[in-house]
Amino acid sequence: MAGSSHVRDRYAVAGIGLSRFGKLPGVSALAFNLEAAKRAIDDCGIPRDELDGVLVCMPAAMGEQHGWASRIAAYLGITPAFCSTMDMGGATAVGMMQTAVALLEAGFCKAVLCTFGTQNSPQGLMPQLFGSPWAIPYGDVGAITFMGHVARRQMAEHGITSLDYARIAVTWRAHASRNPDAQMRKPITVEDHQSSRWVNEPLHLLDCCLFTDGGGAFIVTSAERARDLKQTPALISGVGQVHSSEIIRPYDDGRGGGSEAGDRAYAMAGCGPEDIDVAQLYDAFTPRVVHDLIAYRFTTWDRISEFIASGQITLGGKLPCNTAGGLISEGHLSGMGHVAEAVRQVRGTSCNQVPDVTLSLVTGYGGAPHETPPTVAYSCAILRRP
Amino acid sequence: MAGSSHVRDRYAVAGIGLSRFGKLPGVSALAFNLEAAKRAIDDCGIPRDELDGVLVCMPAAMGEQHGWASRIAAYLGITPAFCSTMDMGGATAVGMMQTAVALLEAGFCKAVLCTFGTQNSPQGLMPQLFGSPWAIPYGDVGAITFMGHVARRQMAEHGITSLDYARIAVTWRAHASRNPDAQMRKPITVEDHQSSRWVNEPLHLLDCCLFTDGGGAFIVTSAERARDLKQTPALISGVGQVHSSEIIRPYDDGRGGGSEAGDRAYAMAGCGPEDIDVAQLYDAFTPRVVHDLIAYRFTTWDRISEFIASGQITLGGKLPCNTAGGLISEGHLSGMGHVAEAVRQVRGTSCNQVPDVTLSLVTGYGGAPHETPPTVAYSCAILRRP
Repeated sequence: MAGSSHVRDRYAVAGIGLSRFGKLPGVSALAFNLEAAKRAIDDCGIPRDELDGVLVCMPAAMGEQHGWASRIAAYLGITPAFCSTMDMGGATAVGMMQTAVALLEAGFCKAVLCTFGTQNSPQGLMPQLFGSPWAIPYGDVGAITFMGHVARRQMAEHGITSLDYARIAVTWRAHASRNPDAQMRKPITVEDHQSSRWVNEPLHLLDCCLFTDGGGAFIVTSAERARDLKQTPALISGVGQVHSSEIIRPYDDGRGGGSEAGDRAYAMAGCGPEDIDVAQLYDAFTPRVVHDLIAYRFTTWDRISEFIASGQITLGGKLPCNTAGGLISEGHLSGMGHVAEAVRQVRGTSCNQVPDVTLSLVTGYGGAPHETPPTVAYSCAILRRP
Repeated sequence: MAGSSHVRDRYAVAGIGLSRFGKLPGVSALAFNLEAAKRAIDDCGIPRDELDGVLVCMPAAMGEQHGWASRIAAYLGITPAFCSTMDMGGATAVGMMQTAVALLEAGFCKAVLCTFGTQNSPQGLMPQLFGSPWAIPYGDVGAITFMGHVARRQMAEHGITSLDYARIAVTWRAHASRNPDAQMRKPITVEDHQSSRWVNEPLHLLDCCLFTDGGGAFIVTSAERARDLKQTPALISGVGQVHSSEIIRPYDDGRGGGSEAGDRAYAMAGCGPEDIDVAQLYDAFTPRVVHDLIAYRFTTWDRISEFIASGQITLGGKLPCNTAGGLISEGHLSGMGHVAEAVRQVRGTSCNQVPDVTLSLVTGYGGAPHETPPTVAYSCAILRRP
C-alpha cells in the first residue's frame, strides 16, 4: 500500500479535555489522566461504553509503571479491545492520534481515548538531570543543554538571534494573556526576555517551557460517528512521523529534522504549508519554534527573522501559532494542550480564534538528546473543519 | 467499521529472531534488542531500509527510558515513519503484532520491526517486589502471590489440583528437552514437581517461569511482500485483545478473562478453537495455562483435567501447546519466544513440529495484579500457513 491518503478525513477528533493544570503537587498523574479523560468524554457526549481503545502517553516522571494504560482504563470503567502505554516523548500526543487512526482503519476499535497526565513534584525534575555518560562530564545533562546547542547552531549558521527568540516568547505570552487557563498570563516585552536570567546561554529563562502538573485527553472516532456527537468534528486530514538520530543534519539541508513528518502529513492531506491556517508548534524552547517553522516549510532561513518580526505568527499574520500560549506560556502537557487548541481552532472556540479556519496543524517533538545516541522524534497532524 | 475481518491474511510475520538468552548478566537490554532484531532481519532477508516502523516492548526492569524505541531504531540505522515504545505487559508481543497490522492497513508503514530485550540483573527482581499499598501489608507483593490466588480459586471452584499443574510443567519440560536453546532441558517427573519447594503455596518452584536475560524480534509486512522474502510467511489471520480489572469475573462465567481476546481473533480469522492445530499459551505460571485452555475455549472445566492428563497438550494430542518449552522451560522473553515458536510451527521448522499445521495460535497475558486496581491484559493471534 503506497501512502495513507486513503484514510484522509475518515476519522476525527471528536472530543477534547484538559484537566486542571499548573503547580498542583497534591494531585497524582493518575488523577490528571482521569479528570482529562472525563472532560473529553463529556465534551463530545460519547457514551463511555462506546470507547473500546485506550492509549496513554507515558509521563516523563513515571518510572516503573507496568499496566499503566490498563489501569487508567479500569478506573474509567472501560474494558478496551486495544490498550497500550506509548512513548515517543513529546511526539506522543500526535503519535497517539495516528495510532488511533490505524486502529480504527483496521477495525480493531470504534472509538479511541488518548490520554496523558503528569505530576512533576517532587521527582519530576530528576529524569532531566540524568544523561549520556559521554555528555555528563561536559555538563550536558538534559533537554535544556541540548537545546543550547541547537540555538548556537541556528545562530552560527543562519543568523538567528536572541531577539528572534524573544519575539516568539512575547507573542506566545500575548496569546496566553487571553487564555484564562494559562499558567503565565502577564504580558512580557522583548526587554523582559532579554533581561531574564540565563538558564543555559544563549537561552534565557523566558525561552523555556513551564513545568506543569496536569493532563490532557482526546477521543478519536470515525468522521461519521463524530458528526452525531456534540462538537464539530476535527477531521484528521493528514498525520505523519519521523524518528532520527541525525539531529545535526536537518539544518544542513535547509529544511529541518521534522520535514519528513510534515511531508507525510501534507501528502496524506493533499495540501501544502501554504494551505495551513493556524499552527500549534511544539515549543519546549523557543529554538524549537524556529526549527518547526523551517522544517514544516512555513518560511525559509533567509526570511524567518522578518517572518517573526512582522507578526506573521500572531493573529492577523500569515500563520498564527500557539494561540493558547504554548508550552512556554500556557503550560507543558506534553503536547496534549496543543492538540486541544488545534481542535478548538477547527471548532471556532479558541480564546484567540483565527477567522475562517479550514486547516489546523499541530506538531510534536520528542527529544531524548541526553541519551546515547541522542534521538529525536517528530510528529505532525493536520486537522480539517468539515 | 464492524470488525476486522477485512484485514484477515493481508499481513504476515515474515521474519523472526531470538537473541542469545538465559542468565547473561553482562549483556544489556539494548544489546539483546539489537541482536534479536538483526537475526529477524537476516531470517527473512528484508533490506534494512525497507523497515519503516519500529515498535519496542518496554521491559519490566527498564525504569526511566524515554526515547527507548527511537534509540533502538537509531542503533539499527533505521529512520522510521512510526516508532513507539509500547507497554501491555506480557500481552505486548502479540499487541505489537496487532499494532503493526493496523499501521500497515492505514498505509503509515510498509514493514514493521517489533522487538524486545531485557536484562534482569541486578535490578530485575525489584519491580516484582513493589505492589499495591492495600496488598503489601498482607504479603501480596507481585505476580507470584497473585497467581497463588488464581490457583486457589481454580482449585476451590473447579477441582483443579496441583497434579494438573504438574503435568503441564512436565509436558513443557519434555518439549524443552528437544529445544537446544531452552534454559531448562533436563526432563522432570510429576514427582519432581510435587517435591519442588513451595514458592507460594499452592504453587511449587516448578510451576513458575524462568528469569531470562535476552530478547526477541519479528517483522510484519504485507502478505504480498512476505511471499518474496526468504521464509514461508505466517499470515496474520486473526488478532484480538482485551484489558480488564475484573480478574475475578472470568471464572464465574465458565470461560475466562481472555475470552473476548480469543473471540475477536476467531471472528477476524473466521475460525474457532476446533480449527487450531497448535498453541503457544502465555505460561508465566502453570495456572495461566489452565486459564487459557478454558478462556480460548479449547476445553471445559469439567474436562480439563482429563484433557491434560490424556496428553492432548503434547505432540499427537488434540492441541500440542508450548512446543518450545514455554516461559517455564524455554525461557521468559515476555512472549516473543511464543511468537517465534508459533511462526516456526507455521513454517514447519519447530524442534517439536506438529504435522500439517494450518492454524497456529499464540496468546499473551500482561498482569499488573499488584497495582490498584489490579489489571490484566490479554492478547491472542492466529497465524495461518499460506
